[in-house]
Amino acid sequence: MIPLHAIRAVLVRPTHPGNIGGVARALKNMGLVQLYLVAPSRYPSEEATARAAGAEDVLTRAVVCRDLDEAIRDCHYVVGASARSSRHIDWPLLDPAECAARLIAGAASGPVALLFGPERAGLANAELDRCHALSYIPANPDYPSLNLACAAQVFAYEIRRAALQERPPMRAAEPPATVEELEHFYRHLERVLIRIRFLDPENPRLLLRRLRRLYNRAGLDKNEINILRGILTAVDKATAKLDKDTRE
Amino acid sequence: MIPLHAIRAVLVRPTHPGNIGGVARALKNMGLVQLYLVAPSRYPSEEATARAAGAEDVLTRAVVCRDLDEAIRDCHYVVGASARSSRHIDWPLLDPAECAARLIAGAASGPVALLFGPERAGLANAELDRCHALSYIPANPDYPSLNLACAAQVFAYEIRRAALQERPPMRAAEPPATVEELEHFYRHLERVLIRIRFLDPENPRLLLRRLRRLYNRAGLDKNEINILRGILTAVDKATAKLDKDTRE
Repeated sequence: MIPLHAIRAVLVRPTHPGNIGGVARALKNMGLVQLYLVAPSRYPSEEATARAAGAEDVLTRAVVCRDLDEAIRDCHYVVGASARSSRHIDWPLLDPAECAARLIAGAASGPVALLFGPERAGLANAELDRCHALSYIPANPDYPSLNLACAAQVFAYEIRRAALQERPPMRAAEPPATVEELEHFYRHLERVLIRIRFLDPENPRLLLRRLRRLYNRAGLDKNEINILRGILTAVDKATAKLDKDTRE
Repeated sequence: MIPLHAIRAVLVRPTHPGNIGGVARALKNMGLVQLYLVAPSRYPSEEATARAAGAEDVLTRAVVCRDLDEAIRDCHYVVGASARSSRHIDWPLLDPAECAARLIAGAASGPVALLFGPERAGLANAELDRCHALSYIPANPDYPSLNLACAAQVFAYEIRRAALQERPPMRAAEPPATVEELEHFYRHLERVLIRIRFLDPENPRLLLRRLRRLYNRAGLDKNEINILRGILTAVDKATAKLDKDTRE
């Protein structure tokens, strides 16, 4: 995995200390550790620590700077997170996944930064000028302004995804049933359905096909096949007497 | 764009009212409007309204329910957001993007739900049993627990992305079974398994859970539910005589 410590989140003039703590938590949840604070209104703050909820280490190591240039001096690639897409028509505009891919690629050669502006106003033009690209979370046009910690969470999530580049396996554990095991099950099922008079042996096709479709779709594992065959055997036993009675 | 109003977020026993407001905002930012609250500790609450910050309409329309079944009765597909991946090895495990694709596909045929458990404990086993799949935000293993509003933000972000991509529905044709229909089926199945002596009524948990998982994974439609219930009824009839004999 790419060293995530080369990627820093920079909060520019954040006004609510609770959001600083929330961002620290969001970063750490995704394995990011570098937080820079440019001229925060109130910091340190008990509210920030409370909202950090276990990510106090990220807060403790946060670097407080007087201005943006101090925070990104050593960075070679800078993206500004923007709440609005229309305003910045001349910047390369990345969606969060593209933004994450660029930051991860850049982090291999040195520090890179993702900037978040103040809660209400967003980044000022002079700050946007420092950015190589802007990134925008596609939002409800009638209500586009995300909470700062939530916006950081989305970007951090995409950064971690890009770093892992491996999706979690869909399912695991028990080995899947083979076609042969499935066919044994379907034949057993057919015999039982005939025995309990649910299936007309003269015309079984459609019903069996539907049941096959259902179980094939589920993707049975060996354990599940054993359970289902066990149920069929129990029905066999429970109805054996009935069969005998009928024959007599 | 797919109608997002068919997708509901369900907060199960949320303890912090601030988080309820934060979730309302996160949903509305992404164009989602349906919020269900199952037995919230404190609600309504000024803190919830403050954190909603412009999404008060989502809060006002939120449906408060006594239990989970009431909140998802009419849903035909239910995903549980899980903080831990290792615990639920036998459920289909979706990453948030896959989860979003499934919810969007499902929303074309009726209501679908995404469940979030209480802040500390997560969803209980009986609640997980209602889920067709679980979804997991790949997080820092040393610090995996996201703030509730931040987790909702990530899922809502992926849902909006999936909706904007307008993928074709995963399956079509027959209308899907609702949770209520599924629960009737599971209860019928349990009765039959006890009757045929496959299930020990004193200790039914693990087996029933495995069967639930199998059928939830398949995503049954109404026609299939009718077939399966028909089979159970046929077993009932075929074993009725046996039961009588045993009693005599």
